[in-house]
Amino acid sequence: MTTGTTTPAAPVAPSRGTLRPLGLDEVQITGGFWGRRQTVNGAASLAHIEHWMEREGWIGNFDAAAAGSLSPLDRGGREFSDSEVYKLLEAMAWEIGRTDDAELDGRFRALVRRVGAAQEPDGYLNTNFGRPGQRPRYSDLEWGHELYCFGHLFQAAVARARTRPDADDGLLAIARRAADHVVETFGPDGIASVCGHPEIEPALAELGRATGDRRYVEAAALFVERRGTGTLAEIHLGQEYFQDDVPVRDATVLRGHAVRANYLAAGAVDVAVETDDTDLLDALTTQWENTVARRTYVTGGQGSQHEGEAFGHDFVLPADRAYSETCAGVGSVMFSWRLLLAQGLPRYADLMERTLFNVVATSPSHEGTAFYYTNTLHQRVPGTVPPTDVASPRASSSLRAPWFAVSCCPPNVARTLAGLAAYVATTDDDGLQLHQYAPSTIRTTLGDGRRVELDVETDYPVDGLVRVTVVATEDRPWTLTLRVPGWADGAELSTPDGVQPAPVGTVSVHRRFAAGDVVELRLPMSPRVSRPDARIDAVRGCVAVERGPEVLALESVDLGGTDVSDVRLDLGAGVREVDGRVLVTVATVPPADGPWPYGDPSGLPDAPRSEVPLIAYHDWANRGPSTMRVWLPLA
Amino acid sequence: MTTGTTTPAAPVAPSRGTLRPLGLDEVQITGGFWGRRQTVNGAASLAHIEHWMEREGWIGNFDAAAAGSLSPLDRGGREFSDSEVYKLLEAMAWEIGRTDDAELDGRFRALVRRVGAAQEPDGYLNTNFGRPGQRPRYSDLEWGHELYCFGHLFQAAVARARTRPDADDGLLAIARRAADHVVETFGPDGIASVCGHPEIEPALAELGRATGDRRYVEAAALFVERRGTGTLAEIHLGQEYFQDDVPVRDATVLRGHAVRANYLAAGAVDVAVETDDTDLLDALTTQWENTVARRTYVTGGQGSQHEGEAFGHDFVLPADRAYSETCAGVGSVMFSWRLLLAQGLPRYADLMERTLFNVVATSPSHEGTAFYYTNTLHQRVPGTVPPTDVASPRASSSLRAPWFAVSCCPPNVARTLAGLAAYVATTDDDGLQLHQYAPSTIRTTLGDGRRVELDVETDYPVDGLVRVTVVATEDRPWTLTLRVPGWADGAELSTPDGVQPAPVGTVSVHRRFAAGDVVELRLPMSPRVSRPDARIDAVRGCVAVERGPEVLALESVDLGGTDVSDVRLDLGAGVREVDGRVLVTVATVPPADGPWPYGDPSGLPDAPRSEVPLIAYHDWANRGPSTMRVWLPLA
Repeated sequence: MTTGTTTPAAPVAPSRGTLRPLGLDEVQITGGFWGRRQTVNGAASLAHIEHWMEREGWIGNFDAAAAGSLSPLDRGGREFSDSEVYKLLEAMAWEIGRTDDAELDGRFRALVRRVGAAQEPDGYLNTNFGRPGQRPRYSDLEWGHELYCFGHLFQAAVARARTRPDADDGLLAIARRAADHVVETFGPDGIASVCGHPEIEPALAELGRATGDRRYVEAAALFVERRGTGTLAEIHLGQEYFQDDVPVRDATVLRGHAVRANYLAAGAVDVAVETDDTDLLDALTTQWENTVARRTYVTGGQGSQHEGEAFGHDFVLPADRAYSETCAGVGSVMFSWRLLLAQGLPRYADLMERTLFNVVATSPSHEGTAFYYTNTLHQRVPGTVPPTDVASPRASSSLRAPWFAVSCCPPNVARTLAGLAAYVATTDDDGLQLHQYAPSTIRTTLGDGRRVELDVETDYPVDGLVRVTVVATEDRPWTLTLRVPGWADGAELSTPDGVQPAPVGTVSVHRRFAAGDVVELRLPMSPRVSRPDARIDAVRGCVAVERGPEVLALESVDLGGTDVSDVRLDLGAGVREVDGRVLVTVATVPPADGPWPYGDPSGLPDAPRSEVPLIAYHDWANRGPSTMRVWLPLA
Repeated sequence: MTTGTTTPAAPVAPSRGTLRPLGLDEVQITGGFWGRRQTVNGAASLAHIEHWMEREGWIGNFDAAAAGSLSPLDRGGREFSDSEVYKLLEAMAWEIGRTDDAELDGRFRALVRRVGAAQEPDGYLNTNFGRPGQRPRYSDLEWGHELYCFGHLFQAAVARARTRPDADDGLLAIARRAADHVVETFGPDGIASVCGHPEIEPALAELGRATGDRRYVEAAALFVERRGTGTLAEIHLGQEYFQDDVPVRDATVLRGHAVRANYLAAGAVDVAVETDDTDLLDALTTQWENTVARRTYVTGGQGSQHEGEAFGHDFVLPADRAYSETCAGVGSVMFSWRLLLAQGLPRYADLMERTLFNVVATSPSHEGTAFYYTNTLHQRVPGTVPPTDVASPRASSSLRAPWFAVSCCPPNVARTLAGLAAYVATTDDDGLQLHQYAPSTIRTTLGDGRRVELDVETDYPVDGLVRVTVVATEDRPWTLTLRVPGWADGAELSTPDGVQPAPVGTVSVHRRFAAGDVVELRLPMSPRVSRPDARIDAVRGCVAVERGPEVLALESVDLGGTDVSDVRLDLGAGVREVDGRVLVTVATVPPADGPWPYGDPSGLPDAPRSEVPLIAYHDWANRGPSTMRVWLPLA
């Protein structure tokens, strides 16, 4: 009962769909942009996160609960702090799967023991409810986060079961006991409601996939169907905050709290796939399309309102009050990946790449020990260095902070980076698809059992050349498919048969490959200038510069003493790339301070020009307090 | 002890300053724009507000408290609901002073009896704290609003004492008992803290002025000095939310919750004036200047963030997520009026006029029975009609709602409109100053005791002609001063001596006036096009059209089936005024929907032009659900 998984060692393993995911035993990232981040994540972030969770008492809560000594007044953390510990467990599980780190495995097992000791005989497990002096179980579904916490517990157990199916640590058994309790308590004859924070939906679906226990998938389906039927009490942020305003299959766009919306959508795709519900899948596809076309930042970030950490109306995408929560980026990757597996369309991998490079990679500092919770696209005032000894408010960071009072984002980034190789490639019966470009080794079998081994070499995104070498293959033809990102007009593919254009979308090579064959994709990496849809009022008259998958930014550190508010982009002077640096020309326009900021000012004076570098957005704020903008007003 | 006032029947009556306010017995608005609104306020809004407060139990809370039967679970309203009842009392008091309405006076007295019955023997009065099952008094200074509620009680009592100094209703005595309790409890030897919501500061100062009891002014000064010294606990919105981040005399700009910030600033001016503290007054002047230059909407609205109902950073003034709370507009009027009395500068009256016409007048519907809590400058989706039978969430209104769960704004508008005549004119030793233009009668004495009687006739702001007729005057020269608004370039003044230019600021006529003398000010009322400071990113490339003191708006109702998002202003075609309607030419640009809203779109197609009317912003959303924008993107 505690093992039995035959699904890939990957976060998502649908029982059907267009593409089959590969596990961490089949694909590894071996270096480059993401390899470096994986190394920092494993070497620094995981220990940093564990340290803070111990220090803040979030792990100790389990010990106190197990000992029967948990005082509600002394309990550390917010109502959802258990979930952070589970996300750390999930991150550790993927990291152990990736690196086989024995020391980390020991820490993982120790943590599982402490968590498991707090589980109650009927499977319930939550340090914030149900004990003397605490509120009763499920007495606050709107804000209590109990099912949300279970969801992250299940995801941790699934990660462990898939990467170490024979482990005897007991995490899967803990999760199954909890899941059985949930099925019984919230099943067709149980509490007919949902959790204020979706998350158990994708988690139950994966637990069902990992264990083969269909009840979990059915419970996920039940939670998805109940959502939007008004089972939750009214709250001042409105029912759309937790997506209880409209049934999932009737909604046309993501709305409300951006993390909740994406987690729910991800779980609903899982349910649609497992129950072969094409109507539901169509609805989710429409929601994805409208959200991307109208409610997504150029970085891929989602959620433009601080109030409610929420999506705004269509085209309300202010740069300077962008919320763009890191966790919403993680949730968006979860949603897109599931649609990619179901439908195989490259647009989903395009958004994932954009979000990974410009949201997920932006959150952690270069050292991996400080994080962004929100990811603004315009910093108007230089940040002050956050305290290193106490947790910061979640949305106040203008510089990365080591920890937050609500610290969902650091472990969410950690689990995403540790399991990132699972998003690099897929297979189907006829071939292998490369979705994300990183130096990597792929050793897998196609859907029909044929063995394929590839090496990918690339300095992407510094360089646009991706070289795929066939290391081993059986002597029958198959198809290698490579994604050509939506921005990569003019890409070329070299195969043993010659060079061909590689139009945006995907490009495929069908042939009888032999060991040593090389396929090269050349993506054009010249800087591009992007203008916003006219309905995005907040950045009218501005452009963003992008290069490959990276959105660029202007940081005041590169302007000498000038603030980013005081410059205008002289687009006529061109955008140059010199020695790997993107250079633009800006006019410096000192602010005209007056008593009233509205009137009929005369034109700009003849402003001095200078050439300044742009940096990758994800690299900003690594050189001390600064101001920054992605969208540059035109001169 | 319950009377003793010799101050004018006006909201603010400093014991010193450049200008002396006039009471409602000295100046009356007799018709026109504001006269109509005063009539609707008195005839409809006051009863509407009283009805809802009864219905929601906010008045009943006092009965239950007096009867000892107030169950914490059954108590109606939020923790600050007592204050709304006090604001209604204040509005009634001014209205009775304005109209001498006996029926209203009866309702006022009945309400005072119910409030007074709940007062405890030591003067404490609050239906939300201190009773069995309730939290102890002053156990939650951050959010409890106890001193805030006292503040509004004091303001109601001051309004009554000044308009009906001989009334025997007992309200002033209730207020004084409460104020004595506050002085004792929070005095130099008492609780060394402040209330999370400023308001008691100006209220104590006025109670001191009205009663001559200096202890109240000293208590106001103490609260002002304590603010910003970190006496309140940390909250997730940050200490600037309630201005406890920086001492008042060290701050350079308003910040945090916009209502709190303005109320505090108003009270601090009172303290500075009464204690002759020029340093403090200078600091407040700087705060006003910076707030107006960098953190104020073209409407005069303040507070750009929904999160925390707060000021944003400098120049963060999004049109489509403008909070611009009605109460912040009221608070801004309070702050500016006090500075005007202290310093006499017309800029304060300019901002008051802008805010009165475009924030305060925007909140109530034409019928006076529905209100805006927030005042957005850009409505992207047509609103749905709010329910008439239940209270609406406070910031969700895209149409005016009859009542809000947090309903601070309706009674705040009501008290402002009822007492509005007090802001029309002032006197000093040498003359009389007209600050706001409305048909009105002024019967007063100058500072040196000379009698002056004036009639003002005008159709302002429909028309720019303001005719002042001297009805009676003593036979000595004095000075009549008229404000020339900052936008009124080219104004002219006609006096018995001829016509002269009236430059922006103030224009004065010093002469030996005689009964029948007429002075006419002609303000240019052609529509004006205003451009935003380049640092206001949210409305870059847009203009606003203004006419006189009114900001104009484009409402979809006037565009046939077209949404305001789909038009661009063709400024080259000019702005015309025909039969009192302002007409502009717009190009209709159908949205170009695509899968991704960033790219390098080609230029706009040749778009059809049409001439459409603009309306006064304060009139919008009186014709059903619509979309609207103040800032119009240029073609």
